[in-house]
Amino acid sequence: MNNLNQKQYSFSLEFSVRDYECDLQGVVNNANYQHYLEHARHEFLISRGVSFADLHQQGTDLIVSRVEIDYKYPLKSRDRFIIKLNLRREGNVRLVFEQDIFRLPDEKLIVRAKVTGVATMNGRPVSPENLIKQIGL
Amino acid sequence: MNNLNQKQYSFSLEFSVRDYECDLQGVVNNANYQHYLEHARHEFLISRGVSFADLHQQGTDLIVSRVEIDYKYPLKSRDRFIIKLNLRREGNVRLVFEQDIFRLPDEKLIVRAKVTGVATMNGRPVSPENLIKQIGL
Amino acid sequence: MNNLNQKQYSFSLEFSVRDYECDLQGVVNNANYQHYLEHARHEFLISRGVSFADLHQQGTDLIVSRVEIDYKYPLKSRDRFIIKLNLRREGNVRLVFEQDIFRLPDEKLIVRAKVTGVATMNGRPVSPENLIKQIGL
Amino acid sequence: MNNLNQKQYSFSLEFSVRDYECDLQGVVNNANYQHYLEHARHEFLISRGVSFADLHQQGTDLIVSRVEIDYKYPLKSRDRFIIKLNLRREGNVRLVFEQDIFRLPDEKLIVRAKVTGVATMNGRPVSPENLIKQIGL
Repeated sequence: MNNLNQKQYSFSLEFSVRDYECDLQGVVNNANYQHYLEHARHEFLISRGVSFADLHQQGTDLIVSRVEIDYKYPLKSRDRFIIKLNLRREGNVRLVFEQDIFRLPDEKLIVRAKVTGVATMNGRPVSPENLIKQIGL
Repeated sequence: MNNLNQKQYSFSLEFSVRDYECDLQGVVNNANYQHYLEHARHEFLISRGVSFADLHQQGTDLIVSRVEIDYKYPLKSRDRFIIKLNLRREGNVRLVFEQDIFRLPDEKLIVRAKVTGVATMNGRPVSPENLIKQIGL
Repeated sequence: MNNLNQKQYSFSLEFSVRDYECDLQGVVNNANYQHYLEHARHEFLISRGVSFADLHQQGTDLIVSRVEIDYKYPLKSRDRFIIKLNLRREGNVRLVFEQDIFRLPDEKLIVRAKVTGVATMNGRPVSPENLIKQIGL
Repeated sequence: MNNLNQKQYSFSLEFSVRDYECDLQGVVNNANYQHYLEHARHEFLISRGVSFADLHQQGTDLIVSRVEIDYKYPLKSRDRFIIKLNLRREGNVRLVFEQDIFRLPDEKLIVRAKVTGVATMNGRPVSPENLIKQIGL
């Protein structure tokens, strides 16, 4: 069975585990998957011409309001993996990233995540209209 | 309104934000809340006589299988906060931690999390019966 | 022999190791000592009325230009430890922190560090005169 | 002037900065350079057939006993960089890594580091003879 091919994704990014990301259980610490997922989202945005760091400089922040992460199987030292994602809009202000992590080369499902974000300006939620247009949703 | 007092918790632990935990948005990076939550769970277990590191040495690991985290409000450099938690059993093999983070001293709700764990031995789920007994659930 | 008492220090801060700070060798990852040392320096500055984060807001950054760290003995899960430090001026623009980490309660020497910093404004080194005065060196 | 070409190195590895590695000063946090340097050393060892994680499983650990790091210039969000390194033996038991970090594509010198390691078995220093042979020093 090949999890990776069952679904269409609009962006993907390859990584490999660095030893310092593993904890005393010898596997990647749970918190580090959020780092990986964040990095994949930012690279996706960059690929659509949106810089997270530049937005922050301009007073707009993309804020994560909720994460749901299912940890299916642990990654170990030096494992290669790929993060695949889709982005959709939900209601007026929410952006929902669906992000799946697969180990390479066997495409074993490692993590399934749903990350909900909102755009804020000076700390207040704003409609992500411009962002949406730029991203091409 | 006082979020902190609306609910009974069986354990709590105080922290304060360290500057290196903040990212370029000037607030605590989302992944670091998982570190805080993990540390609070481990300290709770220790308070009940269960050592996460010792368990690992003995071949038993407590594995997080799912997290749901609602990010309500960001923490900033040097903010003090408290993590409060409850633990309950769900089905035969799952342990569910409900963990809330409140800023101090104003008790503003920062994060609401539900963390589901399972006990594994040599990588396979086992009934957490002994653990449950030791914890006193 | 009691390392801790051989030397006078002007500030100290207690910590305990959190499990997520340990790597797959089962000991605190080397990089995390830099986090500990940084946090101790920032708390020292705060104790003298100087906020690292506020300084950054005002355009002044304290930058580490050099670290020398001798790793004498590793810390493990849940070890308690204390960081002791002294600050002295070196030349016109350098501030030198001497920071030692001792395990508690046995006061075993864990890390000996020398951290050199400079103050910068908009990226250029400036004399730390005002800072020095405020710190009371 | 081109720093990168002044010196011969026996290994190099390219990275790019991930946003979560930056702190509230908007630049890569000092501790994260140690992560980068560690990852480059481990990848170098792997390129010579030596696995840090496997060694640990077999009871041998490579321990860092001292680091000296000169921070020349900060890396920012999404900067690309390369770590170049040389390894030499010092005395009977010490291995010395010289590691330089250059920003890409302009090859600006970012960090100059000297990292001294020793091999230990069950916590005691051992001659790195076998390791040396395997690495081909």
